[in-house]
Amino acid sequence: MTSYRAPLKDIRFVLDDYLAIDRYANLPRFADAPAEVTDAILEEGAKLLEKAIHPLNASGDVEGCTFANGVVTTPAGFREAYNEYIEGGWGGLTADAEWGGQGMPRVLGLVFAEMMSSANMAFGMYPGLTHGAYDAIEAHASDELKRIYLPKLATGAWTGTMNLTEPHCGTDLGLLKTRAEPAADGSYRITGTKIFISAGEHDLAPNIVHLVLARIAGAPEGIRGISLFIVPKFLVQPDGSLGARNGVACGSIEEKMGIHANATCVMNYDNAVGYLVGEPEKGMRAMFTMMNAARLGVGMQGLGVAEVAYQNAVIYTRERLQGRGLKGTEFPDKPADPIIVHPDVRRMLMTMRAFIEGARAFALDAGIKADFAHSHPDPAVRREVEDYLALVTPVIKSYFTEKGYEVATLAQQCFGGHGYIRETGMEQFVRDARIAMIYEGTNGIQALDLVGRKLGSHMGQLLRTFFHPIDRFIAERGTDPKIGKPFVQPLARAFAKLQQATAWIAEQGLRDPEEAGAAADDYLELFGLVALGYTWARMAETASAKLADGGGEDKAFYENKLITARFFMERMLPDTNALALRVQAGKAAMMALPAEAF
Amino acid sequence: MTSYRAPLKDIRFVLDDYLAIDRYANLPRFADAPAEVTDAILEEGAKLLEKAIHPLNASGDVEGCTFANGVVTTPAGFREAYNEYIEGGWGGLTADAEWGGQGMPRVLGLVFAEMMSSANMAFGMYPGLTHGAYDAIEAHASDELKRIYLPKLATGAWTGTMNLTEPHCGTDLGLLKTRAEPAADGSYRITGTKIFISAGEHDLAPNIVHLVLARIAGAPEGIRGISLFIVPKFLVQPDGSLGARNGVACGSIEEKMGIHANATCVMNYDNAVGYLVGEPEKGMRAMFTMMNAARLGVGMQGLGVAEVAYQNAVIYTRERLQGRGLKGTEFPDKPADPIIVHPDVRRMLMTMRAFIEGARAFALDAGIKADFAHSHPDPAVRREVEDYLALVTPVIKSYFTEKGYEVATLAQQCFGGHGYIRETGMEQFVRDARIAMIYEGTNGIQALDLVGRKLGSHMGQLLRTFFHPIDRFIAERGTDPKIGKPFVQPLARAFAKLQQATAWIAEQGLRDPEEAGAAADDYLELFGLVALGYTWARMAETASAKLADGGGEDKAFYENKLITARFFMERMLPDTNALALRVQAGKAAMMALPAEAF
Repeated sequence: MTSYRAPLKDIRFVLDDYLAIDRYANLPRFADAPAEVTDAILEEGAKLLEKAIHPLNASGDVEGCTFANGVVTTPAGFREAYNEYIEGGWGGLTADAEWGGQGMPRVLGLVFAEMMSSANMAFGMYPGLTHGAYDAIEAHASDELKRIYLPKLATGAWTGTMNLTEPHCGTDLGLLKTRAEPAADGSYRITGTKIFISAGEHDLAPNIVHLVLARIAGAPEGIRGISLFIVPKFLVQPDGSLGARNGVACGSIEEKMGIHANATCVMNYDNAVGYLVGEPEKGMRAMFTMMNAARLGVGMQGLGVAEVAYQNAVIYTRERLQGRGLKGTEFPDKPADPIIVHPDVRRMLMTMRAFIEGARAFALDAGIKADFAHSHPDPAVRREVEDYLALVTPVIKSYFTEKGYEVATLAQQCFGGHGYIRETGMEQFVRDARIAMIYEGTNGIQALDLVGRKLGSHMGQLLRTFFHPIDRFIAERGTDPKIGKPFVQPLARAFAKLQQATAWIAEQGLRDPEEAGAAADDYLELFGLVALGYTWARMAETASAKLADGGGEDKAFYENKLITARFFMERMLPDTNALALRVQAGKAAMMALPAEAF
Repeated sequence: MTSYRAPLKDIRFVLDDYLAIDRYANLPRFADAPAEVTDAILEEGAKLLEKAIHPLNASGDVEGCTFANGVVTTPAGFREAYNEYIEGGWGGLTADAEWGGQGMPRVLGLVFAEMMSSANMAFGMYPGLTHGAYDAIEAHASDELKRIYLPKLATGAWTGTMNLTEPHCGTDLGLLKTRAEPAADGSYRITGTKIFISAGEHDLAPNIVHLVLARIAGAPEGIRGISLFIVPKFLVQPDGSLGARNGVACGSIEEKMGIHANATCVMNYDNAVGYLVGEPEKGMRAMFTMMNAARLGVGMQGLGVAEVAYQNAVIYTRERLQGRGLKGTEFPDKPADPIIVHPDVRRMLMTMRAFIEGARAFALDAGIKADFAHSHPDPAVRREVEDYLALVTPVIKSYFTEKGYEVATLAQQCFGGHGYIRETGMEQFVRDARIAMIYEGTNGIQALDLVGRKLGSHMGQLLRTFFHPIDRFIAERGTDPKIGKPFVQPLARAFAKLQQATAWIAEQGLRDPEEAGAAADDYLELFGLVALGYTWARMAETASAKLADGGGEDKAFYENKLITARFFMERMLPDTNALALRVQAGKAAMMALPAEAF
């Protein structure tokens, strides 16, 4: 059986030391979230996740959701745990106070997203999707729709879903066939079939709010003719109580590799009552609001599963006795040494750790920027961070989920044969982590988004928000006596590779979009490595500064941060060399084979 | 549902064009295997695998083996398919004619191992383990034991198992507790518990021959005190018929991530009659005979699963319509283009293909050398190829299985959301492939074997068998007008990295074995890449020579070989740059953290 302890110490390091969020106490939301408040929140939340929600992870996987007569039953314990989650107010942590939320900063929501995915990824998808629906309605829907739906979604009393994919189209939504017929009362009647709808049906909440992409009768073909609708499972009466069942039902659920405790549904819409969100034919814009938040959330799933897999690998490798150290016996009183003495086990643990701590800091930095984008008083700051988030969202989604899967696989490897057995729970982490590379836009699509849309956007305006600070940091710190040589100079070398690769794509991609496409996946990984390299160099700076002050009772913590930073620079960042060469290899050999020759 | 077509065209290219096995027609075994004979064998075998055994792959996964009252029942259809396999003589393809086998070259056995793992990895483990038991008994047991067991194992009438692991020890067999008490009749009584015994119990054959590591009473502690025993499930009577049930029974089977159609058993030995194989306390040597063959076989599992996953990804990406090509519509008559037009899909397909074709050629070259090791008349040749095989076996086991898992994951990714659904069968390939990185010695252990044992062995004597031919090839072909620049020069750069890394390990590892251990995993991958780079450069030479003659009706085949070779050189071989840097980073950051700091 697995265990989970929320990594509060490292989270506090990131929030307090690295990001110094107390700087923002003058800003909305942050004003209500001083360290003592967020401390209490995180500790209480951690208890719930560790004690009530993580213990359902393995049983939820084994039992899975069951389907009969249109009804989906979640695994034993899920209803009680979800009620506890809602009653504790956790569903509304970052929702606006206006709609019944707690109004905490979004960065705290991201912390929770990581912890929730560690504790129980399948469980976490219910509130995760609800947040997405909340965001889309809050940003785009009419006041009347907001009044009806937001209070229920803010608290998690009802849950949300995203209905995009159809049997014949996932990536290319322009092909979608679901139709919306205008009704006399201003609502619409929705008819069509959606597939792969996570949490499309369940027994955790009395109502489910489906956000559905459909084409209004007469709208143009393709992506431009699509609108977004709210389709509630039960119609809502004027007094807010639930009325008749709407014309939407779950037709079946999928047997799948993992996330068994969250049903993946075929949803059949048969003349279902729907309410237009925003303007007609502007559905994709509204859906992107939801998807961008969801993509950050999926990135946090990669990180969260990595963290819990790592924790369990640490426990096992400290306890499992086998063989002796390569330099001789290290624990003469034991029949064998614990396997953590072995370099190859250390290699796996350090690789996991260096990804996890770097990714967490990078993501929470983005979380602060998400707060700024939402509610910073200065519109110039809002624009700047919006550009930054648009740029890094596909990187967080794709790089974090690739690495999350790799880390889960490494953690399983630490268990040897025992990792392949269901009982230890390690193989579930691998199976669960796998979906995050696929849904919310496959990682290949994220890479295309990065090179095709984000790089070229407004002549590199987005890219500047990432490149300029790194440039400045390298210029200012490259010869720093403490961090210059071990941390900033490796970053500078990697950054130079990224700049070369960027220039190559800009030039070649302009001439031939397939060149950009051929480079996209390697470029995204290169970008992710430099992002974490920059983060690690700055964390090393933070830790060095703390140690210069003596480090206090956390001296060992800061020293370990420097060791992990060094491991990242020496063992992980060098991959940028290979990736830059791959990017610049061009498309020729990749595209030359005729399709029928495969 | 998945499909499988044995890649006979590429196999024939490797055997006939690349390896030119007709050169060896004067050697034992090869003399009986001219191309027309092996052609007929491969085609007949392919039919059986494609039509009878592959169709049981998915159903075997869903149904799995069941256990009740000590009896394991294989999934529906397995008994019939196994009978068909045995009756066709496939079990004895490479076994000696003296024992009832067909006496075909071992390289053909390796071809079959790949095809079998593609068709149905869990099924293939039954004959695979039987071959291992056959080899160990043939090499080490007394004539009497050979006479009793080899005819049954040669044909697959009975199956074999390897019993090494115990609950408290897998990698460190020195800790094992299973005891052997000498009996008056010269046999032994075996008592103990073994775990993770693949095919330890099943209903495919009337008898199971367990090869069991145990310690004879009074033998020294540790690895040096271990002996190897035959423990049959049913005792064999003097006339060869089956007698009483022996004191060995399956106690339970594991719930695991994959290979559900092959039971992983806890085996309880309670005063079971066992027969010593070879000399007392020399059990590890005999077990290594079995393990080395088994490790090559596990490498072929990596390759085999990669091949079938790739084939299904090709079919899907050619059929799935979604979006349009990056340069515009390519199939105007269809509602969307097939996704194979996209560079990122091509990247995945070419990556799979370049690994698979390179790995196949490298492995079958090793297969020929395995034949030489077994029966070449010149003892100098035998020694040379034994050294070579000792060196490359851990590379084939580890590199092939790492890549096999990666390829299965990439193939699943080509399916988007559909790849996560059980129905398409793609996620089973990932789950099945995963075990190959763990069993028969984890991949970390393979890497340690390579750097700790094989590199330093007899002052680099093993290494020379790999390095010298590459050196020669580069010297002779580096400026070849056709293959020099695109193929041999990239190989030369990668080989230089491998030489540097080797020198670094030789120097640092001598000083501190943990330095070698810290470098081992990256070094093995670097080695594997250079091995495939060398193979691809030579395949390019073969294809170029064919094309210089016009190429005949296979002109396009040879041209595609050159394109794939180029992809490997441009997109995969550059990883050697990063790996060499990692190797030379040293152990400091990897080992610095105290164990309790994780």
